Amino acid sequence: MQVAVIGAGECGEEQLVLAKELGKQIAQAGHVLLTGGLGGVMEAVSEGAKEAGGITIGILPGEKETHNPYVDIPIATGMGHARNVILVRSADVVIALYGLYGTLSEIALALKMERKVIDLGGSNFAGTIKAQTPEEAVKLIEG
Amino acid sequence: MQVAVIGAGECGEEQLVLAKELGKQIAQAGHVLLTGGLGGVMEAVSEGAKEAGGITIGILPGEKETHNPYVDIPIATGMGHARNVILVRSADVVIALYGLYGTLSEIALALKMERKVIDLGGSNFAGTIKAQTPEEAVKLIEG
Amino acid sequence: MQVAVIGAGECGEEQLVLAKELGKQIAQAGHVLLTGGLGGVMEAVSEGAKEAGGITIGILPGEKETHNPYVDIPIATGMGHARNVILVRSADVVIALYGLYGTLSEIALALKMERKVIDLGGSNFAGTIKAQTPEEAVKLIEG
Amino acid sequence: MQVAVIGAGECGEEQLVLAKELGKQIAQAGHVLLTGGLGGVMEAVSEGAKEAGGITIGILPGEKETHNPYVDIPIATGMGHARNVILVRSADVVIALYGLYGTLSEIALALKMERKVIDLGGSNFAGTIKAQTPEEAVKLIEG
Repeated sequence: MQVAVIGAGECGEEQLVLAKELGKQIAQAGHVLLTGGLGGVMEAVSEGAKEAGGITIGILPGEKETHNPYVDIPIATGMGHARNVILVRSADVVIALYGLYGTLSEIALALKMERKVIDLGGSNFAGTIKAQTPEEAVKLIEG
Repeated sequence: MQVAVIGAGECGEEQLVLAKELGKQIAQAGHVLLTGGLGGVMEAVSEGAKEAGGITIGILPGEKETHNPYVDIPIATGMGHARNVILVRSADVVIALYGLYGTLSEIALALKMERKVIDLGGSNFAGTIKAQTPEEAVKLIEG
Repeated sequence: MQVAVIGAGECGEEQLVLAKELGKQIAQAGHVLLTGGLGGVMEAVSEGAKEAGGITIGILPGEKETHNPYVDIPIATGMGHARNVILVRSADVVIALYGLYGTLSEIALALKMERKVIDLGGSNFAGTIKAQTPEEAVKLIEG
Repeated sequence: MQVAVIGAGECGEEQLVLAKELGKQIAQAGHVLLTGGLGGVMEAVSEGAKEAGGITIGILPGEKETHNPYVDIPIATGMGHARNVILVRSADVVIALYGLYGTLSEIALALKMERKVIDLGGSNFAGTIKAQTPEEAVKLIEG
């Protein structure tokens, strides 16, 4: 399955640790990881996935060269925020970590597109499935 | 100014009346109305604007022929939900009426893009400016 | 009808004069002018249309503030070259003036989308309809 | 490197054989293959790449389920022809096979974006580098 992880481009150490662990679990479960390809949560989750031998795709708002070092395959949309639509549409399941307006916008969009959205960040957004840990989130992908 | 009104493509009679009055007020204040160009709130607000002699732009997800009858100038993006990004980016101010995931996604996106978002639908989304009536909403555009 | 004029963002004086005259003729025939909203041919044709009292729409690759002074309604796509797809899709007819790769790409795209393409720039692109003068081009819009 | 192959969604047997051989050569040279993810040239080149153990990405105009069976990772843009911009922008090098308006539009766009364009289809488009065989085309990727 293709699993998109969404979350802030800048975040605290706690979120980074959580994101990295999530990426590891996603890769160990055999899923392809999709992210927005930039920093913060996107980078940490990609790093975790790469350490576990996974494949990482970065769907970038801008040019190819802007991806973080843990992206295997950069997709350069050049379309700014509209890349979020592509990220969600390409995903079988979306996992949301802590984020602000950008993440909320993507959660709502994913629900609009009838994607399963697993909330690991405590956003309490109606319609999402809550997970307490990365392990639980990854179990919910297929569950 | 270019004012985007966002809201559901299907809604109740109460919302339609509110949307039509809002369109009238926007046009009377001399603003250009932007919507997603389809039915429901989008159609009612465009109808109100046309009755008051305003200009209406419809930024459509699909083809040109799909716009409602009150759109003067259809912009056919062919880009599905990504047209919301164009709608918000082209607006100086965004007014949100009652809606579901699609509208919430656009509100969050507009806040991410640092647009002023006036909430006439009672979404209680953090970061928006609340208005109780169309008159108040239109006053807040410039206020 | 909505008429898109495509051409280079930088060009010689001769092209500018031709573009301005074309814009005037399009407006006098009662059509809405669509362009990419930037300089060169896009600006000159918009200037001509405004002098004749027409309506001009600029479908911009970037932000709202980047449009030339003769654009009434800027549509800010933030999508770079992908805005060309929106420009062509929103047009009933496309008129091509002198241009390079960008213009050739738009001509081919317009033909792919089965739009009527009138060639006023001598590109000799197969599938276009040749016009020798702005008057002739504008006659061919409805012809 | 990321190599985009562009060509028609419907084509003759000769083109299919050429496309499949090209895909094989691209994969054997260790490059990631990008295509539009649909049939014809896109499918044949992906099939060749998969037979040689390569990685194939399909940047689709529509939904995820529409990709051909030789695409490893479908990117569902939902953006119609605008997906061509993403395909070209994500590529280090573009190889064009026989095609019609769609392919010509992509060649011109790739040249506009200053990508190296290798022409294996005899389009004679100015600005492309000509190759006579798949082997030669793949040598020119790095050359």
